[in-house]
Amino acid sequence: MLTELGKRAKSAQRKLMTASSGEKDKALLAIADALEAKTAYIIAANEIDIAAAKEKGMSPSMIDRLSLSETRILAIADSVRQITKLSDPCGRILSGEKRPNGLVIEKVSVPLGVIAVIFEARPNVTVDAAALCLKAGNCVILRGGKEAIHSNQKLAEIMREAVSRSGLPGDCIQLVEDTSRASAEALMKMNGYVDVLIPRGGAGLIRSCVENASVPVIETGTGNCHIYVDKDADLTMAADIIFNAKTSRPSVCNACESLVIHRSIAKEVLPLIKARLDEKSVVIHGDEETAAILPGVLPATEEDYGKEYLDYEISVKIVGDIDEAIEHIMKYTSGHSECIVTENYSAQRQFTDEVDAAAVYVNASTRFTDGGEFGFGAEIGISTQKLHARGPLGLPELTTVKYVIHGDGQIR
Amino acid sequence: MLTELGKRAKSAQRKLMTASSGEKDKALLAIADALEAKTAYIIAANEIDIAAAKEKGMSPSMIDRLSLSETRILAIADSVRQITKLSDPCGRILSGEKRPNGLVIEKVSVPLGVIAVIFEARPNVTVDAAALCLKAGNCVILRGGKEAIHSNQKLAEIMREAVSRSGLPGDCIQLVEDTSRASAEALMKMNGYVDVLIPRGGAGLIRSCVENASVPVIETGTGNCHIYVDKDADLTMAADIIFNAKTSRPSVCNACESLVIHRSIAKEVLPLIKARLDEKSVVIHGDEETAAILPGVLPATEEDYGKEYLDYEISVKIVGDIDEAIEHIMKYTSGHSECIVTENYSAQRQFTDEVDAAAVYVNASTRFTDGGEFGFGAEIGISTQKLHARGPLGLPELTTVKYVIHGDGQIR
Repeated sequence: MLTELGKRAKSAQRKLMTASSGEKDKALLAIADALEAKTAYIIAANEIDIAAAKEKGMSPSMIDRLSLSETRILAIADSVRQITKLSDPCGRILSGEKRPNGLVIEKVSVPLGVIAVIFEARPNVTVDAAALCLKAGNCVILRGGKEAIHSNQKLAEIMREAVSRSGLPGDCIQLVEDTSRASAEALMKMNGYVDVLIPRGGAGLIRSCVENASVPVIETGTGNCHIYVDKDADLTMAADIIFNAKTSRPSVCNACESLVIHRSIAKEVLPLIKARLDEKSVVIHGDEETAAILPGVLPATEEDYGKEYLDYEISVKIVGDIDEAIEHIMKYTSGHSECIVTENYSAQRQFTDEVDAAAVYVNASTRFTDGGEFGFGAEIGISTQKLHARGPLGLPELTTVKYVIHGDGQIR
Repeated sequence: MLTELGKRAKSAQRKLMTASSGEKDKALLAIADALEAKTAYIIAANEIDIAAAKEKGMSPSMIDRLSLSETRILAIADSVRQITKLSDPCGRILSGEKRPNGLVIEKVSVPLGVIAVIFEARPNVTVDAAALCLKAGNCVILRGGKEAIHSNQKLAEIMREAVSRSGLPGDCIQLVEDTSRASAEALMKMNGYVDVLIPRGGAGLIRSCVENASVPVIETGTGNCHIYVDKDADLTMAADIIFNAKTSRPSVCNACESLVIHRSIAKEVLPLIKARLDEKSVVIHGDEETAAILPGVLPATEEDYGKEYLDYEISVKIVGDIDEAIEHIMKYTSGHSECIVTENYSAQRQFTDEVDAAAVYVNASTRFTDGGEFGFGAEIGISTQKLHARGPLGLPELTTVKYVIHGDGQIR
């Protein structure tokens, strides 16, 4: 069954690969129009998912993620239209050279091929992932969570019809309707059909893909992000950045999870930080020195330092110098976003050189690690691996390259 | 044991990551000098491997691959010196922008980290892989075949001492001395220590890595390369290219394995091709039409079309038009190198657009898919996957990126 779906995707890919930017944009606009026209149809299906979720006692925040209102559907359609305004990442001649023997070698950007996306209970990802893949000339195989299956079925149906009406193969977008664990695992091993697998979701899903997939995976999303407050920091700026990075949206991967504080300014800055974090009742886990300065904080365990709280919680470690700070960060980093707050030139230089992460910040909130904020226009996730792409995955990251070589009979 | 080795590599990586180009080149020159100075020492160890190989009845061509003479060692040392002349792929600002909010975002090339290389019985790979990784700021964990273990031990020892003497950590280069299957499998699952695994060797080794690895893999090397002779081909050029691509070095991945011939010129070109291939006694497997034109060729089975012979053998398929040719190639391609011979503008355009492979040629031998021939100066393998890198892997492909962001207190 999945193999059948893979075959259809591969066959559609042959057509999509050579589609012009105009044809792809036409399909995207058809998707946006169809989503708008069928708002009531989508909401009716979504209500079935929500009723089931309520019955199962799903948390209100999860139900909120699952819900599609008219406003939300219009926003989704609008974001599809926005994608048509971005430039086509395919067909760019990235470099080229005429070799001494007369061969002309060009390196050209081309679609990755068939991209599988495994995600959880957010039906907006269904449209988002399909539209981004389509824009970059890729077929997509979507495997969403069972909680959103009715919504996803309708969304996929509407998108497939729209693409087909626009003249491209509807099979460019495939939904795996079987939401069992077995279907996800089968997708992870579809070598020959799936060129890349992108998991979007919690740490458990991502770990399962990394451990089980034999197709290439782009690991996304886990963010144990640190902010180091250096001895030469502007302390008010530090407290403002920390407040923003921790509390503006605690559930996302670019939120700050851990603070590293230079001993010489700890007594001065920690009360400032705590005062800000108290506004949102953030729970602080600190080492002994932190507890001596901020009585009543919870003790920070080894586990706390390694934890992505994704909540109003933060850990604190006090260090003697920047080397110790970097050592601590490199021990616990998930390679997402790390920040130093300092006015010291050499300290920021050492930090940006020695900290190995997708994004390294000087004097700015880690919350900026985001395709939109980086100016990419769109994003399909944030890569925390080093192969292929690191940081926000925009349209160019959904392409690969092909060498095209023109000769006149050269032999070697 | 492997974990210990991984820890040492990771710790060395911290230092190597920030080493200057000068420091890395100094270490490479020290390696080249030490290899030259210790030629006799290396040859003595190599002789143990060769004696064992002969006793096991290894084929002369395999023994040749395993052998290190003084000339070969000098050539290896020289190729290490050549690497110092290439530009450092790290620390390049690939793009950058000042965002409307004042954040300056730079995309910088940085080392991948720790690269594991699993390879077979060619001790020159030991030095080659280590030197390329070092130049790009990466630590390497080498796991060679048991046939070359004595040679590899000495080579690794010499390189580690040389790097250490030059001032960088000797642990940048690690050799897995346990050559059991278990050690290879353990290496494939060293998430957290190994950033990328590059297998170099036969199809079995590569398949095993793709199937079993949980660390990211760059798949290299399988080449079922086709040459399509179009109806508008210069037939003498076609025969010359085919002769070169098949016979100049049949054991390599960029050698041609299969011919696709347009029906309208088949009667004219096949005898020309056969006359050239007969010079090297190439065995031809053809479909029925081919057999009707070239009496006595062996029948081509489904298996033949999918096969990388790596020998003086080739398959032939006759097609009615270019669409059928592309269809056939896309069915059997391993995504390595594909060629069209034609004088027809539209045909070459369709072929280069629709054939999805690392390298697509017009009127030139597939044998040019090679880092040296592409002007990369050096190569660690040829990627046939789409993620991260495709085609010859040069020094830039041994790096990843880091976003470095400078602000003055920006929050979101």
